[in-house]
Amino acid sequence: MSIDLESRKPVRPRPRIAITLGDPNGVGPEIVLKCLSDSRLMKFFDPIIVGSAEVLRKHAEVLELPLPELQVVGDVPERITPERLVVVDVTGGKAPEVEFGKITAEGGKLAMESVRRAVQLCLDGKADAMVTAPISKEAISLAGYREPGHTEFIARLTGTRRYTMMMVSDDLRIGLVTGHIPIWDVPKRVTRQAILETIEIIHESLIQDFGIDRPKIAVLGLNPHAGDGGVLGREENETIIPALEEARRRGYLVFGPFPADSFFGIGAYRLYDAVVAMYHDQGLIPFKTLAFESGVNYTAGLPIVRTSPDHGTAYNIAGQGKASPGSMRSAIYLAIDIARRRKERQQAAAATSSSAAAS
Amino acid sequence: MSIDLESRKPVRPRPRIAITLGDPNGVGPEIVLKCLSDSRLMKFFDPIIVGSAEVLRKHAEVLELPLPELQVVGDVPERITPERLVVVDVTGGKAPEVEFGKITAEGGKLAMESVRRAVQLCLDGKADAMVTAPISKEAISLAGYREPGHTEFIARLTGTRRYTMMMVSDDLRIGLVTGHIPIWDVPKRVTRQAILETIEIIHESLIQDFGIDRPKIAVLGLNPHAGDGGVLGREENETIIPALEEARRRGYLVFGPFPADSFFGIGAYRLYDAVVAMYHDQGLIPFKTLAFESGVNYTAGLPIVRTSPDHGTAYNIAGQGKASPGSMRSAIYLAIDIARRRKERQQAAAATSSSAAAS
Repeated sequence: MSIDLESRKPVRPRPRIAITLGDPNGVGPEIVLKCLSDSRLMKFFDPIIVGSAEVLRKHAEVLELPLPELQVVGDVPERITPERLVVVDVTGGKAPEVEFGKITAEGGKLAMESVRRAVQLCLDGKADAMVTAPISKEAISLAGYREPGHTEFIARLTGTRRYTMMMVSDDLRIGLVTGHIPIWDVPKRVTRQAILETIEIIHESLIQDFGIDRPKIAVLGLNPHAGDGGVLGREENETIIPALEEARRRGYLVFGPFPADSFFGIGAYRLYDAVVAMYHDQGLIPFKTLAFESGVNYTAGLPIVRTSPDHGTAYNIAGQGKASPGSMRSAIYLAIDIARRRKERQQAAAATSSSAAAS
Repeated sequence: MSIDLESRKPVRPRPRIAITLGDPNGVGPEIVLKCLSDSRLMKFFDPIIVGSAEVLRKHAEVLELPLPELQVVGDVPERITPERLVVVDVTGGKAPEVEFGKITAEGGKLAMESVRRAVQLCLDGKADAMVTAPISKEAISLAGYREPGHTEFIARLTGTRRYTMMMVSDDLRIGLVTGHIPIWDVPKRVTRQAILETIEIIHESLIQDFGIDRPKIAVLGLNPHAGDGGVLGREENETIIPALEEARRRGYLVFGPFPADSFFGIGAYRLYDAVVAMYHDQGLIPFKTLAFESGVNYTAGLPIVRTSPDHGTAYNIAGQGKASPGSMRSAIYLAIDIARRRKERQQAAAATSSSAAAS
């Protein structure tokens, strides 16, 4: 193991992070390029760009952003050097035109095929984690994909039934019991089983991915004032509280249900390792209010490591150079952290079992 | 009109603000006492305390807070002097015991009768505005009141059918289309009429109470991503967008519907004079996250001026001296501002009509 002369700490092998470029007509390639020119960030990992070399070149040219020398490949090489940027091209040489701000089936197809390839690289052990730039729901629907987004697609590709979207920032982690569904559909989807599964996935992720030994998890109520003893809704008494009791019987450190407004108002979230929200806006409103531009989406419960920025394609500013790489940078840092932590745990487990076998 | 020598601005007659003490076993009397000893605040108004002199004395004694000399009266005197604090006692000499942190019917009754009296003072023109310290929903229910809280009680006493709860801080005003109801009941209460009425009340209040000439109002969607074109819920297309179109036809400057999470995430609320949220937590989560301890509740649409702090009785810290008077202080400042502004408008309107009559 080599030594970093500046920090005098041992340098671990740099993790390989597969980065998809997202929709070619959105801000994805731009925020990736901006991250690639961040020398501080680049010290910590080896990037594998997945998508189209042509699309990357086009964005660099229009936005006048520095483009590293590319090593366009069909498969990931054994050795990755910082001098040349590895691009796994999935277009077969037929890259779509870049049409900034436009929703196209070709753009949707390129984005999703890049994701499919990055997942395969992770499953094959050729990448340690993947980070996905934003795609357009409309574009992938035009291209004929039935999944509403990244997460469901990756879950299917990895054969994962139980997973949950987590939003992660420096001092806040929020998981959701229900996701992209209408409000009217929320109460009937907030079941004991859904709550318990969310708690279990988040608990496991906090240990395995975030290195927290005995995670404390706060759970929000569904209704205003967490139902106010039943006056403002019965789901707390009939569903949420029994689910928390069952979770405690199973040994989880869970707290709540808390009224969502005052929970964030008094900063109570700082006391817990994660917060479980019952529906999309209940979790996303405080998260984005507190952590915009540094927030990251993480899909907990997958066999692979996948993060993404917490914003969309931003078609309205695509091709203008205005997109902030902040959330993308945070997504890459988080992927590096989690990949390292999972690897360390695997190595520790392997060492334990081999020493046990030797004794 | 006299002149303030320090600011060299004309000093207007100080508005008279009726302040109810709220539940005698909560933090209400404590935060009122703390405000009364704030000499900067006290320069701007004449307080009329409504409730029980005994309760006020007891809190001052236990908490070792300064108590001004009291002028306990049955009705508001003609002249109010800063030397003695006017207390309109509604107990008839039979004040309940103060039992910190305890929910009692006596406490609920005293709190609500104080509110009733303060409303009457405002209706009779003996007070220019009222500020209400927190009451306990359980205590007033024990005491036999059917209203779930202050707002509904005051609406009934003033014969008001259309009103809306607004949360107000320095750079954020949020009104709600629906209030204290379970989540399952929200979608069917989000009707075109309810949205239009909320917009109208808030618009009128922004002009009359906040002195904004051409108010710009942002309206949030109901569903995640404001329904995402219908994929995540149909209420935006079928109800909210048509309501906004009708509002525009009526001449209101309304914008949206916006996805609630990114609206607060990117700070878009700063571009508007007020935000209309569809349900309690959608408005209260971002409001408390952004403005806790300086936030104020204001009931828009009433014939009288009423504000209150944005927190409850805080029974768990009652009688301990720990309660922050921040939100109560902001509530008093806001009541002073609105009372002055309404009076100026009335005087301007009277001057205009009398000069019109003279010409």
